[in-house]
Amino acid sequence: MAPAAVTIANGATWQDVAADRQRYRDATIAEVHPPVPELKSEDIPLNTTGIPKKLLTEEEIKITGTNVEELVEKITSGEWTSTAVTKAFLRRAGLAQKLANCITELLPKKALERAAELDKYLADSKKPIGPLHGVPISVKEHMGFKGEDANAGFVGWVGQVPEEDSLILQYLWDAGAVFYARTTQPQTLMHLETSSNLYGATVNPCNTTLTAGGSSGGEGALIGLRGSILGIGSDIGGSIRSPAANNGVFGYKPTTLRLPGDGWTVAMHGAESIIGTTGPLSTSLEGLRLFSKVLIDQQPWLKQPSLTAMNWKDSAEFFPDKKLRVGVMYNDDVVRPHPPILRALTELVGKLKHSPDIEIVDWSPWKHDLAWSIIASLYFADGGADVRAAIELSGEPWLPLSKFILVDNPRVKEHTITSLWEAVSAREEYRTKYAQLWNETASSSPDARPIDVILCPAGPGVAPKLETSRYWGYTSQWNLLDYPAVVFPVADKVDTLEREKPFEYPEDYVPLGEEDKYIYDLWKKHGTEGYKDAPISLQLVGRRNQDEQLLKATQILLEKAGLPAVVPS
Amino acid sequence: MAPAAVTIANGATWQDVAADRQRYRDATIAEVHPPVPELKSEDIPLNTTGIPKKLLTEEEIKITGTNVEELVEKITSGEWTSTAVTKAFLRRAGLAQKLANCITELLPKKALERAAELDKYLADSKKPIGPLHGVPISVKEHMGFKGEDANAGFVGWVGQVPEEDSLILQYLWDAGAVFYARTTQPQTLMHLETSSNLYGATVNPCNTTLTAGGSSGGEGALIGLRGSILGIGSDIGGSIRSPAANNGVFGYKPTTLRLPGDGWTVAMHGAESIIGTTGPLSTSLEGLRLFSKVLIDQQPWLKQPSLTAMNWKDSAEFFPDKKLRVGVMYNDDVVRPHPPILRALTELVGKLKHSPDIEIVDWSPWKHDLAWSIIASLYFADGGADVRAAIELSGEPWLPLSKFILVDNPRVKEHTITSLWEAVSAREEYRTKYAQLWNETASSSPDARPIDVILCPAGPGVAPKLETSRYWGYTSQWNLLDYPAVVFPVADKVDTLEREKPFEYPEDYVPLGEEDKYIYDLWKKHGTEGYKDAPISLQLVGRRNQDEQLLKATQILLEKAGLPAVVPS
Repeated sequence: MAPAAVTIANGATWQDVAADRQRYRDATIAEVHPPVPELKSEDIPLNTTGIPKKLLTEEEIKITGTNVEELVEKITSGEWTSTAVTKAFLRRAGLAQKLANCITELLPKKALERAAELDKYLADSKKPIGPLHGVPISVKEHMGFKGEDANAGFVGWVGQVPEEDSLILQYLWDAGAVFYARTTQPQTLMHLETSSNLYGATVNPCNTTLTAGGSSGGEGALIGLRGSILGIGSDIGGSIRSPAANNGVFGYKPTTLRLPGDGWTVAMHGAESIIGTTGPLSTSLEGLRLFSKVLIDQQPWLKQPSLTAMNWKDSAEFFPDKKLRVGVMYNDDVVRPHPPILRALTELVGKLKHSPDIEIVDWSPWKHDLAWSIIASLYFADGGADVRAAIELSGEPWLPLSKFILVDNPRVKEHTITSLWEAVSAREEYRTKYAQLWNETASSSPDARPIDVILCPAGPGVAPKLETSRYWGYTSQWNLLDYPAVVFPVADKVDTLEREKPFEYPEDYVPLGEEDKYIYDLWKKHGTEGYKDAPISLQLVGRRNQDEQLLKATQILLEKAGLPAVVPS
Repeated sequence: MAPAAVTIANGATWQDVAADRQRYRDATIAEVHPPVPELKSEDIPLNTTGIPKKLLTEEEIKITGTNVEELVEKITSGEWTSTAVTKAFLRRAGLAQKLANCITELLPKKALERAAELDKYLADSKKPIGPLHGVPISVKEHMGFKGEDANAGFVGWVGQVPEEDSLILQYLWDAGAVFYARTTQPQTLMHLETSSNLYGATVNPCNTTLTAGGSSGGEGALIGLRGSILGIGSDIGGSIRSPAANNGVFGYKPTTLRLPGDGWTVAMHGAESIIGTTGPLSTSLEGLRLFSKVLIDQQPWLKQPSLTAMNWKDSAEFFPDKKLRVGVMYNDDVVRPHPPILRALTELVGKLKHSPDIEIVDWSPWKHDLAWSIIASLYFADGGADVRAAIELSGEPWLPLSKFILVDNPRVKEHTITSLWEAVSAREEYRTKYAQLWNETASSSPDARPIDVILCPAGPGVAPKLETSRYWGYTSQWNLLDYPAVVFPVADKVDTLEREKPFEYPEDYVPLGEEDKYIYDLWKKHGTEGYKDAPISLQLVGRRNQDEQLLKATQILLEKAGLPAVVPS
């Protein structure tokens, strides 16, 4: 049990509360043994990803370099104990905190107790306790955690301590998981970055001038540094996909209401016009699939009845001949992606075109600006009153990206019931039209088969400079439509000026609008050098509730393009 | 195409509009050939169900006495043409109008054209056009019908004519259906009876002093008279189940968002805190299943993306050993059901207890009064403004049951966004608690298996006297929970005083509350004689999205109890 926290209820200032949270975080890291190596800030280069390998033991590097699917095998076969695995990840996560500021607390005591239990179970019964036996899983802070703080990024909420784990933790626990680290998130949970008054900003380990993305940015950075190989995020506008893309790891936003959400800490409880979902980030595509399958196989709808009672489908059911019809969208007609993204997408499509099994079709975006209008008018249907109250509770300052999305966002308004119903009707009309357009792609196919997936950017660029993540359209589009989406790295990063040239903006480029101008200006200002070493990622999108098909399609697509389905360790 | 209607937009009074609608209805019935037999009102007994057999031809009686599953076979085998079948149902439906006032219009021209097409298709291609080839389906008026009026029971809405069929009609059409009759519904669609200022009251063919139920009461009465063997209803509080129960036919409210709803005409468009669903009423249990399977097999979620993309599961998957665990709820602790219901339920449970394959467990209702509070506070979240406007548009009078549910209902309030979210949170909390209680039934099972279904009343009594259907709890409970529910007749009706005695209210009965007092007083006032010949029906309820299991469980339960799965013809 965490010690009683300093809270505003006890009369503390927001600064006191934040300082105490950071003290607490550091104390939990100090409990790790052997101690997490100290770093001098002058030793830290812009790209920190090489540091853990210099400071960890060979065994720790090997363990943390293993992906979920192999790790389960190595633990259940007895090659590594759960205890050894847990210790390795605790050490690497502690280091990740010093490099990227991504941890709210480590849980060495609880995690090692659990690991010991699992080791004993395996020794006694000669079988694993479940399909995730011994897998360390990192957890975004706002997933309710028994006996730990649940502040969701608001200083004023510090001191809330759930009496039981959120449902997703319960199911993962039953499957054998070890929870050892909790990770940062931004104020409001509604930034595509991760900055709060509690912990400051989480930075990108590949280039610390860039954001790790958000709101699951703690997960993104931690997994980017392999301080975790599987983490729990959540996504209502890009919050799993932006950090996955920015850190070059795999991320998956499922169709809503397939994975458990009960017991998370969020503002606007009861809002259901646009809903978020939990989902995984991982160093492997298989990690995403295994996480989801393990949860759904436990029939979580029996405890959270809002969930869809839909069994996890065996991926062998889909695309048995491994032929895919892929719609490609280079540009959403609102914001032109930065050159590295256009280059990577073009190169990937070029590779796919060489495969006789892949058919590439153009996908024309249909009014993605309207889509943003609709979703932005539904995010804060109370005009932001509930979030505002949560911020103002402690007197903590409004962070710039909170102001951007809520205060300065012209689409936010306080709805009446009647205007809410109108906006919901507009949402449904949009969804129906988009479905119709997707159906119509069958007409261009010799066998009248619509496209299987849409391949598109995961954002307007690679990881943005801090506080510049102000265009959500490439991710929020699929939240509005409730389409599942996977983000994957293309095994490439921003490095050489030369290769970007064919994708540079034309000399006489005229921005499509204000948002495009903003993104264009960022490129002109920072260019290749400014985004140096940022991973390049893309997004694959499926139809609503066709999650299993999407994951299988991603696997096939990577295979056909000759790309790895794991992040190199 | 219907002739231009008299509408308030053209300056007509509400009385003019209603008179014109009735003239139009009668004109469509007059188009049927041979003409629908005339009836003198003095010839009509309280129980009219025997009359069709006296006035129709032997072939017509045979055709309309056939259930969906056999009818498809007889048409596709060539024994009957679709034309002959359509003519027989048009005649019987015309008669049903004269007996129960259940029709808004017949569609003889369109239906016979369609039937001729189907007959030609079968002759030419030697195969049916789809799994419902030639099956006549009756349609509740508010399902949008291309070229026909779409008023949803509001006088002021007369004159709205959709340019295309609602989605459910499109899919049924593609499966081979013949649409030949549209049926009545009440003002607001929010009565458990069927009375409007357009058509007056639809009455119960078994006893014309009683209601046919509602809001799909036109369907209930029409199918009760076998003027239809399969019809489309809709249900948000009991609107399929009340008419099915009151008329002694099968009715099925699916889990929401499994069957298409797009293109129906309803008030409060965009409201989603409590949603309704389309669903079938039929003379056979298999009719319910076939209807649902045919729709879902066409993957309607590809056109209406709000639908759950869940394939129809083969019923053979469920209960292969035909063993059932049945929770029985005699009383919801708010309103004690009338003696005939308690008798029928007790007798049925008695029969089931003799089966070694059925395990009977008591189901204790959990705060069904709270459930009503929650759902009633969410039905009209705008305080009723939209429905009020629809009524007031024409100046038509408020009917008593519209006033009851909206104006005099203390739970109706105009929500703010914040209070809406609170009510939605209360709804989810209730659903979660109920799921937990269901899960806990596993503890009483030797093999830790929770109950499969809940067997309970379908209403507080049999078909009520007109304008007395004021207790929704036995049906709305399952809308709040979004549990699928089937209503089935127990092959018995209210007839002899003697058999009721053990189930009579105790002499010193003290009502549980106001609603119980109301229901109790009705029984004391009308008793067995007042409800004479009313069919007795019960309800079987499954867990959310376990629709296929529920239908299979119903089949097993009827079989084990020795009850027919079809209505006797």
